[in-house]
Amino acid sequence: MTISIIGVGLIGGSMALTLKEKGFATKLIGVDANPEHAQKALALGLVDEVKELHAAVQESGLVILATPINAAEALLPMVLQMVDQQVVMDVGSTKKTICEAASQSPKRGRFVATHPMWGTEYSGPEAAVKNAFEKKATVICNKEDSDADAVALVEQVYGLLGMHIVYMNAEDHDVHVAYVSHISHITSFALANTVLEKEREEDAIFELASGGFESTVRLAKSNPAMWVPIFMQNKDNVLDVLNEHIAQLRKFKSCLEKENYEYLAELIEKANGIRRILK
Amino acid sequence: MTISIIGVGLIGGSMALTLKEKGFATKLIGVDANPEHAQKALALGLVDEVKELHAAVQESGLVILATPINAAEALLPMVLQMVDQQVVMDVGSTKKTICEAASQSPKRGRFVATHPMWGTEYSGPEAAVKNAFEKKATVICNKEDSDADAVALVEQVYGLLGMHIVYMNAEDHDVHVAYVSHISHITSFALANTVLEKEREEDAIFELASGGFESTVRLAKSNPAMWVPIFMQNKDNVLDVLNEHIAQLRKFKSCLEKENYEYLAELIEKANGIRRILK
Repeated sequence: MTISIIGVGLIGGSMALTLKEKGFATKLIGVDANPEHAQKALALGLVDEVKELHAAVQESGLVILATPINAAEALLPMVLQMVDQQVVMDVGSTKKTICEAASQSPKRGRFVATHPMWGTEYSGPEAAVKNAFEKKATVICNKEDSDADAVALVEQVYGLLGMHIVYMNAEDHDVHVAYVSHISHITSFALANTVLEKEREEDAIFELASGGFESTVRLAKSNPAMWVPIFMQNKDNVLDVLNEHIAQLRKFKSCLEKENYEYLAELIEKANGIRRILK
Repeated sequence: MTISIIGVGLIGGSMALTLKEKGFATKLIGVDANPEHAQKALALGLVDEVKELHAAVQESGLVILATPINAAEALLPMVLQMVDQQVVMDVGSTKKTICEAASQSPKRGRFVATHPMWGTEYSGPEAAVKNAFEKKATVICNKEDSDADAVALVEQVYGLLGMHIVYMNAEDHDVHVAYVSHISHITSFALANTVLEKEREEDAIFELASGGFESTVRLAKSNPAMWVPIFMQNKDNVLDVLNEHIAQLRKFKSCLEKENYEYLAELIEKANGIRRILK
């Protein structure tokens, strides 16, 4: 099958690698607003050809929309106007807005809203990696609004990528990802700024930074072009979680100020409960 | 050389493994307040014998104090009373308090204050791992207060563990670790509590939790018996950093509330500066 990847970066490029390797994509067409990214994707062998949007969609059986989510929201209605029997899937980190963008299209049934739960702090075609999605979860949202054959094709794609599929509605998805992904990025950005703002001796950080620091701060390398639209689109859920997180941090602050170390131990024991969820 | 490890847990046990493997420790003696830990360390082969404190110190050339830091603070003056020419080193996460505890001893010169910058979220003898410290940094504090031969022995130990040594005074150390280690643990504990408090659907977290979530939350599994004393001893520095961190989080909150996405992008770009420090 010929597959178009719109936005040949970390996610689109990583998908391209596996779909080619497994023989599912007989031809991969790259479309990218940034000509340098498109050429880089070609040079790296992520795609076989680079085309403009309309020609790519016409020629493809499957179109994977893998741009930042604000661009995806703008592009999807236009792509659906070009579609006959092709299937269009997105891979964005929020699902309510993109489903609303699709809902007015007479071709809504050809679209499948998805979110593979994998990423790194890097972006662009150079960030693409092989076997990226294996054994991770992916979400398909509002399945009932998509044609059965379109869902079946997307399920096949995620099967080839080695992912297990979770089905939920778009609104629930957006609440859950605020907890399991978006807040982690905000705390990481804020932690990086805390250290960069106050710890003037960068050499000392560089020397001493251990695994714990690295793991809590690595997400702070993530790209604003990707993350600002996510926070915009999921603002209400992210604000709810952020307010709760600040309240939780204030409890730690209060324990230290009042030297209430019994309550501090309780807070830590409670946090240890995360072991139930993360093995 | 016969070496005593007081507190045969994650750090003491991991050191024992390498010092034995490299042939530096001809005999390893374990001392632990928890008899189950001591027996477990023996069963796991971390130590060759288990003894009570006085006998162990008498027999050893090097004593490694690897208990939680509140116990180390209490034990060190007593251990120094038992010492003739033995060298005593600690491995705790704060350095000012332990150096103060040593400062009144006529045997202060036999003590070397150190902090190897490695750990995991696990604890106890079962958590010990081989080659744990390799290529990480370790700190030696207030070197001028230790006898030259004691420092030389400790430098040899860290060389065998494959660590590079950074020298600084205890007060500077405690400021730096508040930034590069202690605040990461507080944000991780608070993040775990945020999710456990508000996200009632633990199944959804379990299904969806991706690498980003796992890396920012894994430290929340850390043991209160280790961390409460660290926050106690480094309270003032940790509070400074925590206050700054809450202020940084409030900036993100304000951007979202006011829909000021330009400033949000600026905050993220600034956070990206952590790339200068973490490769």
